[in-house]
Amino acid sequence: MEYRIERDTMGEIQVPADKLWGAQTQRSLQNFKISGEKMPVEVVYGMAIVKKASALANERLGVLDSEKAAVIGEAVDEILAGKWDDQFPLVVWQTGSGTQTNMNVNEVVAHRANQLLAERGSELRIHPNDDVNRSQSSNDTFPAAMHIAGVIAVEDRLLPAIDVLNGTLQEKMKAFDHIVKIGRTHLQDATPITLGQEISGWSAMLEKSRAMIEYSVNSMRELALGGTAVGTGLNAHPDYAVTVAEEVTKLTGKSFVTASNKFHSLTSHDQMVFTHGAIKALAADLMKIANDVRWLASGPRCGIGEITIPENEPGSSIMPGKVNPTQSEALTMAVCQVIGNDTAIGMAASQGNFELNVFKPVILYNFLQSVALLADSMISFNDNCAVGIEPNEAVIQRNLEQSLMLVTALNPHIGYENAAKIAKTAHKQGTTLKEAAVASGLLTAEQFDEYVRPENMIGRK
Amino acid sequence: MEYRIERDTMGEIQVPADKLWGAQTQRSLQNFKISGEKMPVEVVYGMAIVKKASALANERLGVLDSEKAAVIGEAVDEILAGKWDDQFPLVVWQTGSGTQTNMNVNEVVAHRANQLLAERGSELRIHPNDDVNRSQSSNDTFPAAMHIAGVIAVEDRLLPAIDVLNGTLQEKMKAFDHIVKIGRTHLQDATPITLGQEISGWSAMLEKSRAMIEYSVNSMRELALGGTAVGTGLNAHPDYAVTVAEEVTKLTGKSFVTASNKFHSLTSHDQMVFTHGAIKALAADLMKIANDVRWLASGPRCGIGEITIPENEPGSSIMPGKVNPTQSEALTMAVCQVIGNDTAIGMAASQGNFELNVFKPVILYNFLQSVALLADSMISFNDNCAVGIEPNEAVIQRNLEQSLMLVTALNPHIGYENAAKIAKTAHKQGTTLKEAAVASGLLTAEQFDEYVRPENMIGRK
Amino acid sequence: MEYRIERDTMGEIQVPADKLWGAQTQRSLQNFKISGEKMPVEVVYGMAIVKKASALANERLGVLDSEKAAVIGEAVDEILAGKWDDQFPLVVWQTGSGTQTNMNVNEVVAHRANQLLAERGSELRIHPNDDVNRSQSSNDTFPAAMHIAGVIAVEDRLLPAIDVLNGTLQEKMKAFDHIVKIGRTHLQDATPITLGQEISGWSAMLEKSRAMIEYSVNSMRELALGGTAVGTGLNAHPDYAVTVAEEVTKLTGKSFVTASNKFHSLTSHDQMVFTHGAIKALAADLMKIANDVRWLASGPRCGIGEITIPENEPGSSIMPGKVNPTQSEALTMAVCQVIGNDTAIGMAASQGNFELNVFKPVILYNFLQSVALLADSMISFNDNCAVGIEPNEAVIQRNLEQSLMLVTALNPHIGYENAAKIAKTAHKQGTTLKEAAVASGLLTAEQFDEYVRPENMIGRK
Amino acid sequence: MEYRIERDTMGEIQVPADKLWGAQTQRSLQNFKISGEKMPVEVVYGMAIVKKASALANERLGVLDSEKAAVIGEAVDEILAGKWDDQFPLVVWQTGSGTQTNMNVNEVVAHRANQLLAERGSELRIHPNDDVNRSQSSNDTFPAAMHIAGVIAVEDRLLPAIDVLNGTLQEKMKAFDHIVKIGRTHLQDATPITLGQEISGWSAMLEKSRAMIEYSVNSMRELALGGTAVGTGLNAHPDYAVTVAEEVTKLTGKSFVTASNKFHSLTSHDQMVFTHGAIKALAADLMKIANDVRWLASGPRCGIGEITIPENEPGSSIMPGKVNPTQSEALTMAVCQVIGNDTAIGMAASQGNFELNVFKPVILYNFLQSVALLADSMISFNDNCAVGIEPNEAVIQRNLEQSLMLVTALNPHIGYENAAKIAKTAHKQGTTLKEAAVASGLLTAEQFDEYVRPENMIGRK
Repeated sequence: MEYRIERDTMGEIQVPADKLWGAQTQRSLQNFKISGEKMPVEVVYGMAIVKKASALANERLGVLDSEKAAVIGEAVDEILAGKWDDQFPLVVWQTGSGTQTNMNVNEVVAHRANQLLAERGSELRIHPNDDVNRSQSSNDTFPAAMHIAGVIAVEDRLLPAIDVLNGTLQEKMKAFDHIVKIGRTHLQDATPITLGQEISGWSAMLEKSRAMIEYSVNSMRELALGGTAVGTGLNAHPDYAVTVAEEVTKLTGKSFVTASNKFHSLTSHDQMVFTHGAIKALAADLMKIANDVRWLASGPRCGIGEITIPENEPGSSIMPGKVNPTQSEALTMAVCQVIGNDTAIGMAASQGNFELNVFKPVILYNFLQSVALLADSMISFNDNCAVGIEPNEAVIQRNLEQSLMLVTALNPHIGYENAAKIAKTAHKQGTTLKEAAVASGLLTAEQFDEYVRPENMIGRK
Repeated sequence: MEYRIERDTMGEIQVPADKLWGAQTQRSLQNFKISGEKMPVEVVYGMAIVKKASALANERLGVLDSEKAAVIGEAVDEILAGKWDDQFPLVVWQTGSGTQTNMNVNEVVAHRANQLLAERGSELRIHPNDDVNRSQSSNDTFPAAMHIAGVIAVEDRLLPAIDVLNGTLQEKMKAFDHIVKIGRTHLQDATPITLGQEISGWSAMLEKSRAMIEYSVNSMRELALGGTAVGTGLNAHPDYAVTVAEEVTKLTGKSFVTASNKFHSLTSHDQMVFTHGAIKALAADLMKIANDVRWLASGPRCGIGEITIPENEPGSSIMPGKVNPTQSEALTMAVCQVIGNDTAIGMAASQGNFELNVFKPVILYNFLQSVALLADSMISFNDNCAVGIEPNEAVIQRNLEQSLMLVTALNPHIGYENAAKIAKTAHKQGTTLKEAAVASGLLTAEQFDEYVRPENMIGRK
Repeated sequence: MEYRIERDTMGEIQVPADKLWGAQTQRSLQNFKISGEKMPVEVVYGMAIVKKASALANERLGVLDSEKAAVIGEAVDEILAGKWDDQFPLVVWQTGSGTQTNMNVNEVVAHRANQLLAERGSELRIHPNDDVNRSQSSNDTFPAAMHIAGVIAVEDRLLPAIDVLNGTLQEKMKAFDHIVKIGRTHLQDATPITLGQEISGWSAMLEKSRAMIEYSVNSMRELALGGTAVGTGLNAHPDYAVTVAEEVTKLTGKSFVTASNKFHSLTSHDQMVFTHGAIKALAADLMKIANDVRWLASGPRCGIGEITIPENEPGSSIMPGKVNPTQSEALTMAVCQVIGNDTAIGMAASQGNFELNVFKPVILYNFLQSVALLADSMISFNDNCAVGIEPNEAVIQRNLEQSLMLVTALNPHIGYENAAKIAKTAHKQGTTLKEAAVASGLLTAEQFDEYVRPENMIGRK
Repeated sequence: MEYRIERDTMGEIQVPADKLWGAQTQRSLQNFKISGEKMPVEVVYGMAIVKKASALANERLGVLDSEKAAVIGEAVDEILAGKWDDQFPLVVWQTGSGTQTNMNVNEVVAHRANQLLAERGSELRIHPNDDVNRSQSSNDTFPAAMHIAGVIAVEDRLLPAIDVLNGTLQEKMKAFDHIVKIGRTHLQDATPITLGQEISGWSAMLEKSRAMIEYSVNSMRELALGGTAVGTGLNAHPDYAVTVAEEVTKLTGKSFVTASNKFHSLTSHDQMVFTHGAIKALAADLMKIANDVRWLASGPRCGIGEITIPENEPGSSIMPGKVNPTQSEALTMAVCQVIGNDTAIGMAASQGNFELNVFKPVILYNFLQSVALLADSMISFNDNCAVGIEPNEAVIQRNLEQSLMLVTALNPHIGYENAAKIAKTAHKQGTTLKEAAVASGLLTAEQFDEYVRPENMIGRK
């Protein structure tokens, strides 16, 4: 392999000749050979946005010349277009401030900008620290990049996925609103509801947890930029903080503001704990929905079997007709991961000291993984399962008829005591309610049919 | 012991004669001898409020007569006055719907109401199910009581405690705003900040997490009441849901509304997961604050020692002068508990099936414990520690002078390279920056004093 | 209220006249008004055992006179007899080393010993520090008391409860070993097993997790005693560590040894993390068992309904015949708590610094709560549910006959392809396998009955 | 792209022509587009070992012909040599039984075996189900592969990494055993210890948690193989279970046995919960060690600064001399992840139903990630930090001399009261103990030097 020599304040180091990164990235590669979790590309992009926004802000404030700002912007645009994804090889398990990823981006932007300048014959050169990192520190750029990446992930990936699944649930809710079925509490037969009502509960879960996420992610619109190394803003222009937030807003098309207290921004990640708490609320709801779907589809003969779901793959090589609820399984596994991630995030966020929390990459990694897992699982569950949910009306009807809980409808006519006696007799003798009712001599078959109408027990006017 | 005979649909059972509860409470006592965690009195009160509000709503809707409603209200008022706390002996680890606590309240209210009626010579009698539980089911009253108890706990206990501690921090922030000290990142000396700025970061944490909690608890203003057993509202008057929410609002002086989807209310606890997520954000912040305080107060001779905290108890029987940061310790232990509680709540909330989540008591128990722990720990930390925080100005000044990070101020005058050389020399030789600077011949002692002014490095204009 | 004046190195303080505790307990009461979780009596007893064992060891080593040792032992015996439980009022949320509970025990033992001495006219007096705490420090007594309390709780409460439940499962396993039923994987019908085999899986869970707990708790037999304040054993006789471990062993009837490295003992709680991890394994198994029981008992008409469980309380005031699986609910809620507790313990155990971990009380509290919850829940589940589990043979038989998965038995006779076709036809047309098989013309009804024998598909020879 | 047509019981599907996998793998790829976490290669290898061991066992039992067994073995050997890593593209978030990864391995083994057979002109063909999967089901192969992968990861990756780090700590312990320094409890100065003693506590943590892991992983030597679909062993030779365990043992060089209860093996993962609990104990210990290292190295001027650690990268572009404890940061972030993973594993393990737990991939994924994270972080921490730890003897000595806690040594000579007075005076006046002692008139400077010898306070004989 060919190498070139790069240098930093520690001295010289060999870097593969075909790589855009510099000395500090190379050192990190060598010093942190830990597992395989790469720093997510979303935060690399978030950091690249910070670099372009900073260049533009510094230009506006007169502390960076326009040509430099322009070429930094060009290099960033290439990164954001996905052209250089392989130039960000560092792992999550590095400096807890994300310094090395900040430097990785500084180095790649500078190197690429210098290539562009050289191609054009310009003698201008971009320095990773003095130019690309100007007015910044890892300590404020990394939390800013976390917030940018987090807001984008939530708004562009998670919320739309919720909407897709909820759209399907809304359709099913309407389509099945007329199907009266037995309700179940404590896993025990209860009074009737419609299948549409049952699904409306799932839909309400998505809507409510969506609103929680949508609100909470607003707290992440605060950017640490302008705090620099310890929160005081040393070495940054006094107007940099506000200006760069404007530029980030323009570049992302999403609203960001400068943080009201930079000491907080560097050392607290309460905003990500809060937002991930809302994501956990969604996860808990999804577990419930996915479980309901697979239990309702259980069978085909010896389970509940009130709905059918699509058969996407052979269920068993020896047992034909076996439709396993694999999408529910993938989704519920994702939920377990998100609940684990929430523990990791909460603990990591609690471990700040003085002017810095140095557990930033692990927080970010878990946050983005949770978003990816739930967003993708919901889409997968939607496309490969939810859209194909159909009621098994024969089973639903049979269950409804067999249920003893319809006895409640007799209370006004023959009294609770008599009704209870009929239900108990039916339960004991294994007959239908109707049979037991007629046998009791308290009412006729015609009266039973008139009084016991599940469709009148579902809360409609 | 004297007993009386009580009965329910299961048959007869002996109840201690001096107790107000009935058969179902007694059965639960006998069937659930599990550990010692009593159902929190807060949720008993929340349930009692539900009972009075229901009586009033049912009266307004013409389905309960006024005398009954009145005496139910009287019995509830006595409970809320704390007169009958010993009549609610059930543990958390009971039916997952909280049915037995609902019945415990129904039975005690009915029994006490009947005592009052009997005392007055009235022949009217109150039935625990038909009257006290009218229009209700455990399945909607318990989640309603959870929300009522939760909102009251958060608003009346947690938020005020935050305000108390934040008030102290604000005072300290102002009082110490002039004290320039060394900043620290990665536990390493960094550029200066003021002690006031450092504390402003703590204060911002409290303010931000307070806002998160304040917002998220709004989601808990939704009441399940009106859903009854499965969410359809069977057996409740169509206007009961809205009416009872109005009554709860009046009784508590806090805004509550009827839930927009009752199927959601019975089976999802995303709103408590969300709110507890905000509480976890506060917990993570408190861990950081309490840790900063104890590290800054570490010593007295061999630690950081930049602040002193009150001595509340003998630190050691053999080592005089040892002031242990015991309030920080209690607070950080509480934080660990809250983070554990958050795991329990998230998991429990994910385990609903069909029309009901039967992990309600464990969710409620953890939620209220977290509120009590953080609220009380903050007050204790405030009163016994934070109010007495004082700067150790001699140590702060010595640290500031010794720090090599002030070298940054020389960059504009002698260049980064020369500045770095001076810092490294001082580090190597163990001298002050000033000594190394003067020895370098690059500037005079007077120039050093002129250039190196920590008070100009803290981001003030 | 009457008070007496007590004093410590901080000065004088009023203590209620009727209390046995002294100044430091009183200060803690006033300084830590945090929530209501009392320091568990088990650790108070563990600490009392430490005090008596220390007195005996010190006597043997010639550093405490015999009369003092004897009266300390008498006072401890009264504590262990439960006579003074109300004299230990401190909460969990105190000094993280448990110092105040150590002093509470020192003070009560000394005070009570002095009462006994005074009653007998002796002029000898016992000093809480110089005598009761001799050769000790909170830093080694508290972790020792944690281990003593933990080992006793596990061995005397948790393991026997496992055995009780497992005894029942073993009985059921044998009693139901002949009942062939449908197996279920992915909640879908699968090939047959016996009910006894299914229960044998539950029993194996208890046996395996029991062995894990039994082994792991051995790691907690190490006692920190002899380490004193920082692990070096300053102020303790060189033979104290070994001698006191012998005395603890004698007093408890359980094997304890002196820790091989006292620096570890004061600052690491890996042994409790490890043991609680085994307890979590049990918890996970119990969740599965309790869930299986309630799902198998679901119905009565519209669920799986293959077993029945005892009816312990009215399930619903409006729905007769509703038998809610309330014991499963209590047990699964306990499991959620244990999983939350495990998070709290793991985090707390990670937070040690230098010579001490100051998160001891929160670790101990969660550990003992988990033991109490699982032990009591298992007994409650056993007595009120498991012992009454009965097969619903009619349902089991019907499910077995309806199942399509028996088709597997035809593979050797008519080939997989033909068998699959029959199964799919039956599934589509809603017929039994036998009907579809005969209709296919590939085999006769007699042949079907000969080939398709579920009792031959369950792995018996 | 070129495609070939593959088929399964669902019908035909296009597979990229250059891939070795078949229809079911392709379906999974299309049905589970969820996040990016690939099924870890370790479990693919574990599954490949299962396939070869099964072929060998089936051959021994006479149910697979030798030529088939041989070529299956060849294909597996190529997989284990890493030749086909890119042929296992499935993600973690698939069927919860791992069925699709089982089929992926079946398909690749069969396809590759058929290529080898075709190259040799043989007409024999290998079928993925009938041959490669013979006597097996996903339900028993996947848990077996989990255990094989887990045992290998723990024994070959985690335990050796512990040994490497412990080796370094042992060396440092010996090298620094003579260096007396101040001890610290509650972050406050305490009585002296040696630096070697302090490090011995770290070493004991590694040794003790290593023993826990080493023991607990033994529980994972049980293999589910032989249970097939539901635990009864349907379709497997009666001796397959024992035979295949022997073959796995031979192939891996590690002891494995057939599980004593196959119903347990398919549905409980208590053994992985238990082992991961031991790994969490290690994680908690590592957090403490890494924290101690960075706090002891804090400074360089305004922290504790008693040790120095290697400078591996520039700490700050503006603050020369800043050596950030980046290895501690990476390690402590890994710990947070492991603690989160433990939550995910515990929850997932609790969610089994009936004959199967369908959360296997998420359990496996977290388990292996934890092993990789801790193993690699320990090596990285060792190589880049621990080996370079050096005492800063000047600081250690200065701290020791300044400490007031040495006053304890005066107790026997002048009494506790007088000693306390001296300590308090020194504390108040900011003088050394010696100065205050001499000023007190109670002893001379010579006597002070004779009595106060830290080296006599460290528990050595």
